[in-house]
Amino acid sequence: MSSALNGLFPYPIVQAPMAGGASCPPLAAAVSQAGGLGFLAGGYKTADGMYQEIKQLRGLTRRPFGVNLFLPQYGQPDPAAVEAYRGQLAGEATWYETSLAAEDTVGNTDDGWDAKLAILIEDPVPVVSFTFGCPPAAALTCLRKGGTRTLVTVTSVAEALTAQDAGADALCVQGIEAGGHQGTHRDDPQADGTGVGLLALVAQVREAVALPIVAAGGLMRGSQIAAVLAAGAEAAQLGTAFLACPESGAHPLHKKALTDPLFVRTELTRAFSGRPARGLVNRFMREHGPYAPAAYPQVHHLTSGLRRAAAAAGDPQGMALWAGQGHRLARSLPAGELVEVLAAEVAEAQCVLQAVQRRNES
Amino acid sequence: MSSALNGLFPYPIVQAPMAGGASCPPLAAAVSQAGGLGFLAGGYKTADGMYQEIKQLRGLTRRPFGVNLFLPQYGQPDPAAVEAYRGQLAGEATWYETSLAAEDTVGNTDDGWDAKLAILIEDPVPVVSFTFGCPPAAALTCLRKGGTRTLVTVTSVAEALTAQDAGADALCVQGIEAGGHQGTHRDDPQADGTGVGLLALVAQVREAVALPIVAAGGLMRGSQIAAVLAAGAEAAQLGTAFLACPESGAHPLHKKALTDPLFVRTELTRAFSGRPARGLVNRFMREHGPYAPAAYPQVHHLTSGLRRAAAAAGDPQGMALWAGQGHRLARSLPAGELVEVLAAEVAEAQCVLQAVQRRNES
Repeated sequence: MSSALNGLFPYPIVQAPMAGGASCPPLAAAVSQAGGLGFLAGGYKTADGMYQEIKQLRGLTRRPFGVNLFLPQYGQPDPAAVEAYRGQLAGEATWYETSLAAEDTVGNTDDGWDAKLAILIEDPVPVVSFTFGCPPAAALTCLRKGGTRTLVTVTSVAEALTAQDAGADALCVQGIEAGGHQGTHRDDPQADGTGVGLLALVAQVREAVALPIVAAGGLMRGSQIAAVLAAGAEAAQLGTAFLACPESGAHPLHKKALTDPLFVRTELTRAFSGRPARGLVNRFMREHGPYAPAAYPQVHHLTSGLRRAAAAAGDPQGMALWAGQGHRLARSLPAGELVEVLAAEVAEAQCVLQAVQRRNES
Repeated sequence: MSSALNGLFPYPIVQAPMAGGASCPPLAAAVSQAGGLGFLAGGYKTADGMYQEIKQLRGLTRRPFGVNLFLPQYGQPDPAAVEAYRGQLAGEATWYETSLAAEDTVGNTDDGWDAKLAILIEDPVPVVSFTFGCPPAAALTCLRKGGTRTLVTVTSVAEALTAQDAGADALCVQGIEAGGHQGTHRDDPQADGTGVGLLALVAQVREAVALPIVAAGGLMRGSQIAAVLAAGAEAAQLGTAFLACPESGAHPLHKKALTDPLFVRTELTRAFSGRPARGLVNRFMREHGPYAPAAYPQVHHLTSGLRRAAAAAGDPQGMALWAGQGHRLARSLPAGELVEVLAAEVAEAQCVLQAVQRRNES
């Protein structure tokens, strides 16, 4: 098989990059060392902060790893909508004894794209993935010249075709089950409620596009990884599954919440960032989700102080508890051990499928 | 393997019952004859109408088949909400030159449950499945005594536990991708947006409950059937895939719409029936979905004349175009041929998975 992802990692297991501190170098290193593909989150960091993490990770493993970048957001959301949301959140700021970010810090919309891309072209890493859009073909070409494989996150067939046209090496196909942000290229409130489940999406993308697929969304067990492989993916990307690992940089309250029976379901919300992202349903999401504007990343910057204050106060009801739909199956194993357990489960699931097939043939 | 579903059908392929005429005896017969499990829809029919179809099907095949029943709905929706919706639909009635159902015909909420159950106990069929709730344990016991295997549709772990407690033989685990009605036991508008994708749900139900699983939702290809088998299901249930077959009783405009590029996405809506059901997004859904009340089956009866009139007028924009998220992959093959193609695709997907595994081991 001559796939763009071939030979990079022995197990078909990719750790999803989670911005906000969870995907730290020790987690990525543990995953890559065990035979998966570890990932750093470039988003929400300075370019230099990202580069420091890359250097740290290189000190921890010589195995391939990836870095994720957020595409710059060029649309201008209605400033009045952001200000109205600021007004709605005033009571939260009082409650958590903090203040909302000033208007001028709310304006950073490119996430340091140019500087981060320049670093990754100058000093190439094995894999770069992209979220919230498709980079220009020229950027993908520059990365490929340095030996980097590129992976564009898509949530629809149309986005997959765009990524193929731009020259991506592979796709991260993200189903509606995924925790954290949906990587949809353009945030369109008219499309709310039309997101597609992973297995339905993988089949459609596979038939429309020739690129290798990494499937993401709600995957917690090796049996589910085997499932997406059977459906035509070449690997599976798991975020929430690695969130609970001791190496993950997620807040302890966040890790605990994943399997806390108090949190019974997840929902997509714009409450924390202005873009649909899946998290455990908590007070903040219930109160502010229904009227949060489609204003990313303005709302992200607006609420970041609140979320920090809630975490400092030990209150998960005010934090962004990103989680995929499989969160109740999280295991707090060391990441390397989790990779091995998952790989064993994939092999086991394959035997199950063989047994079914034999039964049908007999 | 001593599964309750063992030996009933050689291929792990179940045709989903679709109420409203699509799952007619010729379709069910073709599926069962080819080695899948054909299904009749008992819902929205008189008990006698259901029985006539069973007799017709028995004349067409001697292979096992199933009959689906809707659970009676005991909750009383706010009559004022139904009347308000009637007011909103007045313009539709004028447009399609028809009239809305009178208030008294809107009140039938038990779908002839007692009479239908009595027939199925008196003259047993191989499989009976249930939608919109879990039948009382006594009903399941009576059916089992007659040699019938029972299958309860569930959309969450909690519902799966309820079905197990009641004594169901197996579960139909329905993901959010599924076309037509979600089989959720209690329609709770507070839970809108929290439905779970199939692969995430199968893994969770499988670990919580010991019953065999038939997986449903967005499945159109054998590769996806292999996927749910790898994830632990014993069979897959396909509705939309069989909707397009020549034997299906779906309206020709409905069949055509499934692959018409005009219809680009599906959504869950209460617009047609008062309960969340997935269909192709059309004018009726866009206009009335946002304020349709949670009032099933009152809204179903209220809109049935409108939908018939729209179909008679040749206007798919006023019809309920039920479709799962995989609708664009529909193939209009004869149903028996489709079963064979799907079974061959399952075998092929198993080889794909084996190849991946060998690559990882090498």
